[in-house]
Amino acid sequence: MEIVCIGNELLIGKIANTNAQWMSRRATHLGITVRRTTVVPDEIEEISAAIGEALQRKAQFIITTGGLGPTFDDKTLQGLSKALNRKLVVDEEALKMVKEKYEAYLHKGKAEKGDLTPPRIKMATIPEGTKPVPNPAGTAPAVLAETETTVIVSLPGVPREMEAIFDETVVPMLKRASSNVSFYEKIIYADKIMESNIAPIIDQVMQDNPSIYIKSHPRGIENRPHLELHLSLKASNGDKPEERLEKAASQLARLTVRQGGEVVTEVSPAD
Amino acid sequence: MEIVCIGNELLIGKIANTNAQWMSRRATHLGITVRRTTVVPDEIEEISAAIGEALQRKAQFIITTGGLGPTFDDKTLQGLSKALNRKLVVDEEALKMVKEKYEAYLHKGKAEKGDLTPPRIKMATIPEGTKPVPNPAGTAPAVLAETETTVIVSLPGVPREMEAIFDETVVPMLKRASSNVSFYEKIIYADKIMESNIAPIIDQVMQDNPSIYIKSHPRGIENRPHLELHLSLKASNGDKPEERLEKAASQLARLTVRQGGEVVTEVSPAD
Repeated sequence: MEIVCIGNELLIGKIANTNAQWMSRRATHLGITVRRTTVVPDEIEEISAAIGEALQRKAQFIITTGGLGPTFDDKTLQGLSKALNRKLVVDEEALKMVKEKYEAYLHKGKAEKGDLTPPRIKMATIPEGTKPVPNPAGTAPAVLAETETTVIVSLPGVPREMEAIFDETVVPMLKRASSNVSFYEKIIYADKIMESNIAPIIDQVMQDNPSIYIKSHPRGIENRPHLELHLSLKASNGDKPEERLEKAASQLARLTVRQGGEVVTEVSPAD
Repeated sequence: MEIVCIGNELLIGKIANTNAQWMSRRATHLGITVRRTTVVPDEIEEISAAIGEALQRKAQFIITTGGLGPTFDDKTLQGLSKALNRKLVVDEEALKMVKEKYEAYLHKGKAEKGDLTPPRIKMATIPEGTKPVPNPAGTAPAVLAETETTVIVSLPGVPREMEAIFDETVVPMLKRASSNVSFYEKIIYADKIMESNIAPIIDQVMQDNPSIYIKSHPRGIENRPHLELHLSLKASNGDKPEERLEKAASQLARLTVRQGGEVVTEVSPAD
């Protein structure tokens, strides 16, 4: 899976890319590996290039966020259209979704009219042969496109809307694709040992536990080291993932203590 | 400028990409446009591909973060070496920087020896023809590489170290490149008007103020709309950027109120 995030607000550092983190976490825990995240500005060429490159890499899933709204800077569907080489058309089903939203808003007593103005029709103008996906938390429909190798889902950038559509529409697809594999992890902390001195220990534990990936994250300073050691594996439930993690973590802790480190084991990693 | 962030922890959603946000904000305020951020895993091929693609796009600056440490998963310099097609060599200057750090640690009474073990020598093993850059906040030196079109700086992933080297080494280069241009911005909030109804107003204000970019960020729900309207421009001080922003913001506010919206102007945007 690859993630493509669209929005100048990310590239000017106005906000952190919490959407990418949220989707990465969700996908990872479903056993899907996120291979790359790309952030591009609100420009048709750049959006099209980023999607096109992920298509060339034959990503199984490409999830885009941002750029589906009614304003001029919402250009994701134009970029997607270009990447897929399919023209943009007003989709009747999408138009119905948008219209129903505005009618519902109107019925709740808002002053705005339910008319399908050009900015509203824009949200229903999607690449030919793609499908609109209902947005349970907002107005702009998401869009689902399929190629021979890849499923592309374009989600809104508003986190609440992105999350709702992701859980409703993307998660079931990821579950089918991950075929029962999940992601398991465990964290232990090591004090009073430098990262350069724990490096050979990590090498040894990974050699003895080939299914386990171990990454050290320095949380102190090298001079007063506090290391977070993150162990993870992707496995199906029948492969006894917790036992494997436990075995590797015990060895890692034992060898670290033998080198003069102090170890604290966390019961379950913070989510 | 392009940013390449290296680290599985980003792609499993363990952490948000605050390094990219921090660097983007810093660069933007210095008048530099960040064109793309790419996040790749701790794999030589992927790191090399991401750097190579940014080189092909002739980015003036490529800043990488992460993957400079002593453990096996720190592979950025191997990826950089491959992207530049230059072999890795133990750099004497880098080795001196690393050695001095460990000697200083030792002198402060730590139990670890100041020996140059293989994991420590690894941090001084950099692509031929590149330069090590002192790390005032940690052990691993940063690395500066230049090609005909591009300056590449590889920074550590630990935020405190990344920030220290960025400010000390990258900021002066960005300042020279931006030739006195800065980024200016202003935020106003609009209530009681839907984003689809403010879209044509934004179009008009941008047409009347061609140097200003306006982006709307929905902060409420379409049914009870609360919109953040972000105005920005890149200009030199002599171009009266504040006046231009003020003029566009006033027009935007006036037209929004005329359409039944309520407007709150923020004195200065949150940083």
